[in-house]
Amino acid sequence: MKNSYLAFAAAILAAPVIAQPADPVAAAADLALDEDRLAWDFVEGITTEVGPRQPGTEAEARGRAWAMDWLNAAGFANVANEPFMMDTWVRGEERAEVVAPFAQPLTITALGNSGATGARGLEAEVVYFPSYADLQAAPDGSLRGKIAFIGHEMRPTQDGSSYGFAGPARWTGPGLAASKGAVAAVIRSIGTESHRTPHTGGTTFAAGVTPIPAAALSNPDADNLERMFARAGDRPIRMKLTLTPRQLGRTESGNVVGEIVGRDPSLPPVLLACHLDSWDLGTGAVDDGAGCGIIAAAARNVASAGQPLRTIRVLFAGAEETGLWGSRAYSEAHLNEPFAVGIESDFGADRIWRLDTNFTDSNPQLYRRLAQSVVRFGVAPSREVATGGADLNVIRDQKGALVDLQQDGTRYFDLHHTPDDTLDKIDPAQLRQNVAVWTQVVGILANTEGNFLGQQ
Amino acid sequence: MKNSYLAFAAAILAAPVIAQPADPVAAAADLALDEDRLAWDFVEGITTEVGPRQPGTEAEARGRAWAMDWLNAAGFANVANEPFMMDTWVRGEERAEVVAPFAQPLTITALGNSGATGARGLEAEVVYFPSYADLQAAPDGSLRGKIAFIGHEMRPTQDGSSYGFAGPARWTGPGLAASKGAVAAVIRSIGTESHRTPHTGGTTFAAGVTPIPAAALSNPDADNLERMFARAGDRPIRMKLTLTPRQLGRTESGNVVGEIVGRDPSLPPVLLACHLDSWDLGTGAVDDGAGCGIIAAAARNVASAGQPLRTIRVLFAGAEETGLWGSRAYSEAHLNEPFAVGIESDFGADRIWRLDTNFTDSNPQLYRRLAQSVVRFGVAPSREVATGGADLNVIRDQKGALVDLQQDGTRYFDLHHTPDDTLDKIDPAQLRQNVAVWTQVVGILANTEGNFLGQQ
Repeated sequence: MKNSYLAFAAAILAAPVIAQPADPVAAAADLALDEDRLAWDFVEGITTEVGPRQPGTEAEARGRAWAMDWLNAAGFANVANEPFMMDTWVRGEERAEVVAPFAQPLTITALGNSGATGARGLEAEVVYFPSYADLQAAPDGSLRGKIAFIGHEMRPTQDGSSYGFAGPARWTGPGLAASKGAVAAVIRSIGTESHRTPHTGGTTFAAGVTPIPAAALSNPDADNLERMFARAGDRPIRMKLTLTPRQLGRTESGNVVGEIVGRDPSLPPVLLACHLDSWDLGTGAVDDGAGCGIIAAAARNVASAGQPLRTIRVLFAGAEETGLWGSRAYSEAHLNEPFAVGIESDFGADRIWRLDTNFTDSNPQLYRRLAQSVVRFGVAPSREVATGGADLNVIRDQKGALVDLQQDGTRYFDLHHTPDDTLDKIDPAQLRQNVAVWTQVVGILANTEGNFLGQQ
Repeated sequence: MKNSYLAFAAAILAAPVIAQPADPVAAAADLALDEDRLAWDFVEGITTEVGPRQPGTEAEARGRAWAMDWLNAAGFANVANEPFMMDTWVRGEERAEVVAPFAQPLTITALGNSGATGARGLEAEVVYFPSYADLQAAPDGSLRGKIAFIGHEMRPTQDGSSYGFAGPARWTGPGLAASKGAVAAVIRSIGTESHRTPHTGGTTFAAGVTPIPAAALSNPDADNLERMFARAGDRPIRMKLTLTPRQLGRTESGNVVGEIVGRDPSLPPVLLACHLDSWDLGTGAVDDGAGCGIIAAAARNVASAGQPLRTIRVLFAGAEETGLWGSRAYSEAHLNEPFAVGIESDFGADRIWRLDTNFTDSNPQLYRRLAQSVVRFGVAPSREVATGGADLNVIRDQKGALVDLQQDGTRYFDLHHTPDDTLDKIDPAQLRQNVAVWTQVVGILANTEGNFLGQQ
């Protein structure tokens, strides 16, 4: 433990202002910890009545209609859909098998933006790269006619930082393999569990690089393929791969918004964000149905404690998964509208353990008030600088105030972008802790005047 | 705790004969606990180089060839394939979706012997039965034109007894639904985990009942469908189901055998059984590659302690999963050959916790010796009467001696018959404990004279 952190935390938490029962926001947060049903109702409802909500598709549109009905029923004002256009990719058939020397099927799923093999598939020799760096080191042209297999492994981290370490194998690995001549690429799932549920997710091909078929193997299948390389000796490993995804061109998506109108609508609002779309394999429970349920429940709970000073706006962004289309569209449309602060929930439904802001040093009084208010929910102060979630482009583009309520991500990448992203993975008690912390923090922010960054 | 068990265990374990280092079988068992690599080598090899081994198929035949090579390389004598003919069913396409009122795809897998829907699938209203008993109570003809959904839920049990409670929903539920007019049946997976990995397994249709399409939903999908019923009110839930499995008619399978030849080949041999086939979804690691690895490793370890008195025969049965074809063929072919005792390993690779025999009362001296010998591996004595595993029909038909080395099945039905039955689910330390216990028990049995049932 660093001494500098001990001193910081001691100073922040010294002589805490214990929330009094008379404080209606604190009382609402405490009640949420024990009894909140709104967040669960949202995520149970949307996973059951809509299910997967692939960006740009009819299923995502049904999700928007469902969410607007829910927001209206929950008493939000100014509920609206703000449509935008996007490039839409959809999955087709997907099959893989090793054909020699150890014939057996493998469980895969196509990555977003993957090219197609055609219905008959393609067969080629596999070249194994234990890590992304090994692929980077491969000479140009050395993969001509081959399938690249990137084995780069991911381990769980509480703060999700291992996603940054392992993620490039998916984000740019297939494009890199294509630039070196590969006819297809398969990667070990960017995920931390060991089930036959491969992790999809977007991949990008640089300008001038023709997209190749690209897929993720489940972790047990990646293990198996690695063992085959260990056992095959000089014998080449040949794989047959069939992927038939399609680019649908431009289709419509949309951002859903709703408001708790404040006592002074002339003040910049508090913006709470999540995304409503999901990958098609699961039902979008932890990514990110839970997040939309958390922010909507918190906004309602703050309202139930008395009309807030500022307006609270919820943004259920569309089409996050395939390129932050909704976040970019929202920023483009609302860049000139001032916001007080942005906060996002998009890292599952496990407990919040740390409070980050980008005004910890510049507005220590506000940071201290926030930090003290959530100690009772087990949330620690931090000097990390909040950068906001994927759907807060508008706040970043404005260089505005950001709060990150960091969730425990230890098991998030067990589920992320897999068929296993389903309601049963959400722990109701941890979900309620999220709502309680959000209620407390949003309640303070929505009732605080001034510029949160501490600027005059 | 029952007092009668306390008294029994105290008597069995009183003044235990501690295994001496000079006892070569005990030394071999101790060594196996720390160092055995043979069982792992078998199960790693067959899952990597062969993978799934569906009964009656070319993949199962490759499994037999692989296993015979392995047995020969490991020094077994009289390695042979004993072919038999069987009725073979293979999986086709499988898709399900709710089409109204809450359209979304569901993850399913066909049950063995399922009928087919045709390539275009069928669509019908779903009728929900929370338990098998509810389906039994449905009037004849009441399911005409409907899809029956049986939600019967399974919980983990250490001894696997919940399989007997939940299993009928799969074994005979679809047939029962068909007899009441259903056009198809879907069941909640007979399994104890919550992943999108549905559990296949055989189902049977009574004589005169035409097989209907029958499939298992993963547990999260069964949860979801139940929630739809809770939310749908009066609206009927309609499902589209596409299953295209095929009956291939008679094809060849086989039983693989190998021996450690004893000093007195005229004595009835000790028969160690497992099954070599597996369901097609996984790679047959815990069901039952591990079992074949355990019994083969134990036989080799006993041999390494000195040639045993009796011959030890390993039986890697074929085609267990789709109807005990190998077990029945083996009994038919070998019914008149006397065996000293039969033991089977077919319940995963987790630790052995209990020793059952069918001679505990009739031959207490032998039972006591066995029970005392495995206390050091954490195995408890028991008065339960061993009934043998699925591949020991020959011993049951002879009314012979049986030993059951009961494995901890708490997590077995997380994996059973799913895509997740892969090598990574095997704990090498628990696998070695199995080999150690088997080495100890088989070592005693193979070096003991007389009739094990205690008869003269």
